[in-house]
Amino acid sequence: MITDTLQYRSLLRDELQTVRDLMLAECANIPSAIQQPIEMLIDGGGKRLRPALVLLYAYMCGADLQKALLAAAGVEMLHTATLVHDDLIDGARIRRGVETLNIQWSPTATILSGDTMFALAAKLIARTTDSTLALRFAETLESICAGELHQMLSRDGGTLPSVDAYQQRIFAKTASLFALCTETGPILAAQDQPAVDDARQFGRLLGEAFQITDDVLDIMGTAESLGKPVGSDLRQGLATLPVINYGQAFPDDSRLRAVLQHEADDGILQALIDDIRASGAAARAMALADSRIALAGPLLKRYADTEYRQAIEEIARFSVWRQY
Amino acid sequence: MITDTLQYRSLLRDELQTVRDLMLAECANIPSAIQQPIEMLIDGGGKRLRPALVLLYAYMCGADLQKALLAAAGVEMLHTATLVHDDLIDGARIRRGVETLNIQWSPTATILSGDTMFALAAKLIARTTDSTLALRFAETLESICAGELHQMLSRDGGTLPSVDAYQQRIFAKTASLFALCTETGPILAAQDQPAVDDARQFGRLLGEAFQITDDVLDIMGTAESLGKPVGSDLRQGLATLPVINYGQAFPDDSRLRAVLQHEADDGILQALIDDIRASGAAARAMALADSRIALAGPLLKRYADTEYRQAIEEIARFSVWRQY
Repeated sequence: MITDTLQYRSLLRDELQTVRDLMLAECANIPSAIQQPIEMLIDGGGKRLRPALVLLYAYMCGADLQKALLAAAGVEMLHTATLVHDDLIDGARIRRGVETLNIQWSPTATILSGDTMFALAAKLIARTTDSTLALRFAETLESICAGELHQMLSRDGGTLPSVDAYQQRIFAKTASLFALCTETGPILAAQDQPAVDDARQFGRLLGEAFQITDDVLDIMGTAESLGKPVGSDLRQGLATLPVINYGQAFPDDSRLRAVLQHEADDGILQALIDDIRASGAAARAMALADSRIALAGPLLKRYADTEYRQAIEEIARFSVWRQY
Repeated sequence: MITDTLQYRSLLRDELQTVRDLMLAECANIPSAIQQPIEMLIDGGGKRLRPALVLLYAYMCGADLQKALLAAAGVEMLHTATLVHDDLIDGARIRRGVETLNIQWSPTATILSGDTMFALAAKLIARTTDSTLALRFAETLESICAGELHQMLSRDGGTLPSVDAYQQRIFAKTASLFALCTETGPILAAQDQPAVDDARQFGRLLGEAFQITDDVLDIMGTAESLGKPVGSDLRQGLATLPVINYGQAFPDDSRLRAVLQHEADDGILQALIDDIRASGAAARAMALADSRIALAGPLLKRYADTEYRQAIEEIARFSVWRQY
C-alpha cells in the first residue's frame, strides 16, 4: 500500500511526529548497544497507518488528544515489537532499509529486545489511565502471539487451510491490531458500546482487506516492487488466500501439497506460482477484500463528514488498491 | 528457600488455589500442543511466593479481594513467563520436575509461548481495572526485560561487575517484581503515597535479600540440594555477589577473569569455587542480605499485628535462612 500521497500524511504531520517522539522517549532505558538499532527501526517509520487510524478516529469522536497520542504511540510500538519477533522467526535480513536485529544480534538478544518493546507499548497504553484500553491492549497482544503460535505450529502440516482458518489467522496477525486502533478513540471518548463496536468492526474489516491485499501482492507483484521473491509465504510453506482459492479450484494439482511440505524444487514452485497468477485466484481473493471495505464504509456514517472521516475513507479505498 | 512449612501456605490455601485456577483459565486460547506443557508449568507450582505477597499485603490493607486475586494471578503469570524465556536463554532442560518448553519445542515456539504468557499476565492485571497497577505492571515488565538484556550483553565482558551493578541487576531480575507484588495491595486499597512507597520498598528489600541468598546458595550449596551443579552462574560467566566479594578480596587471582571469559577448564573452575567457598565471601554477601531484611522489618509496623503481617514477617526471616 503506497501511502505517501494520502491525506492523513499531511493532515496528521505534527501528531505523527509527536507519536515518533513519544516512542523514542520510551527507549531511554534500553541498553545502548541495542538502543540504536531499535531507534532506527522506529525512526525508519513505515506507513504509520496504525497510529493514523487511532488519531483520525480520536478526532472524529472528540477524544482527549494527549491520551490518543499516547495510545497511538503504544499501538505503533506494539506493531514494531511484533516486527522484531517476526523477522527473527522468518529469518528476515532487511527491514525498512536496515539490517534486522536478528542479523545484528543473537536470537536471545532479539527476543529480549522485542519483549522490552512489548513492555514499552504497555507503558504507553497504561499512561492513558484508561483501564478498558489496557485490557483491550492485552487481549490484542494475546491474539497476535497466540495467532503466530498457531501459524507456526500449523506450517509444517502441508495441508491446505480453509478460508475460515485463513480469516482467523489474518484476524490474529493484522486485523486484531487494526480493530484496537479504531476502537481506541471511542473508548477514550467514553462513547456508548454500539459506537465502540462499530469502530472495532470497521478496523477489523479494514485490517482483513489490508492483509488480503498484501497476500495477493505477494503472489501477483514483482520481486522488484516487493523487495523480496514473489510467493515468499508459499516458499515458507504458508498458504494465503489466493493459494487456498487456487487449491480449491484445482484440488488435483499435486504440486501444491509438495510445495507446502517443502518437498518441491524451485522449478516446480515457480511453475506453480505462474499457474496461480494465471488462474484468477487472486481476483477472487480481491473480491473478498473489496467486500470487506464495502461492509466497512457504512460504519463511518455515524460521524460528521469531516476531513478526518474523509482521510479514513481514503485509507479504506487505498487498502485494496491494486499495484499489479 | 524451603517454604512448605511457612504459615502463608495454610493461611492462603484457598486463595492460592483460586490464583492457580485463574491462571489456568487464561490458557484456554493457547494452541493445544503448547497448552499442556504451559499448564503443567503453572500447575507445577513452585512456591507461589509472589502471589502470596500480593494477597498478604492486600489483606493487611483491606484491599478488594477479587482484584487482589486477579493481580496475584497476573504477577505469577508474569513470573512464569520470564521462567520460559530464561530457560531458553540459559538452555535449561528441567523446570519444576518436567522438561522445559525449549527442550520440547523450537526456540521460536518457546519465545512465542512466553510472549503469549506476558499477554495473559497483562490481561489479568487489566481486569483489576486499576490503571495505576497496569502502569506499574508495564514498568516492571520493562525492568525485567531490559535487565535481562543488560545481563546478556555484559556476560561476555569477562570483567568483574561492581556491587552497585550487581544490585541493579538483581533489582531488575527479582526485586522489581517483588516490589510490584507488595505495592499492589496499597494501590488497590487506594492508600496514600507514603504507604505505597513503603510497601514497594519492603518488596524491593525482600527481593534483594531473596536473590542474594539464592546467589549465595548457588556457591555454597550442594549439587544435590540445588538440583544443578554448584556455581552454575559462574559457569555461565555470570559473577554474583559472593564471587564479586571474592574478587575484591583477591584482585590478583587470575583464575576469576579466565572463568568469566570461559577460558578456564573445569578443574580450575572447581578449584576456584572451593576457594570462594572457603574465603568468607559468602558470609559477607549474607551480611548484605541480612541488612536488607533489617531495613525491611520496620516498614511493616504501620499495619496491625495480624496473622497476615506475621506471615510476611516469617517470609522475610526465611528469605535469608541458610541451607548450607
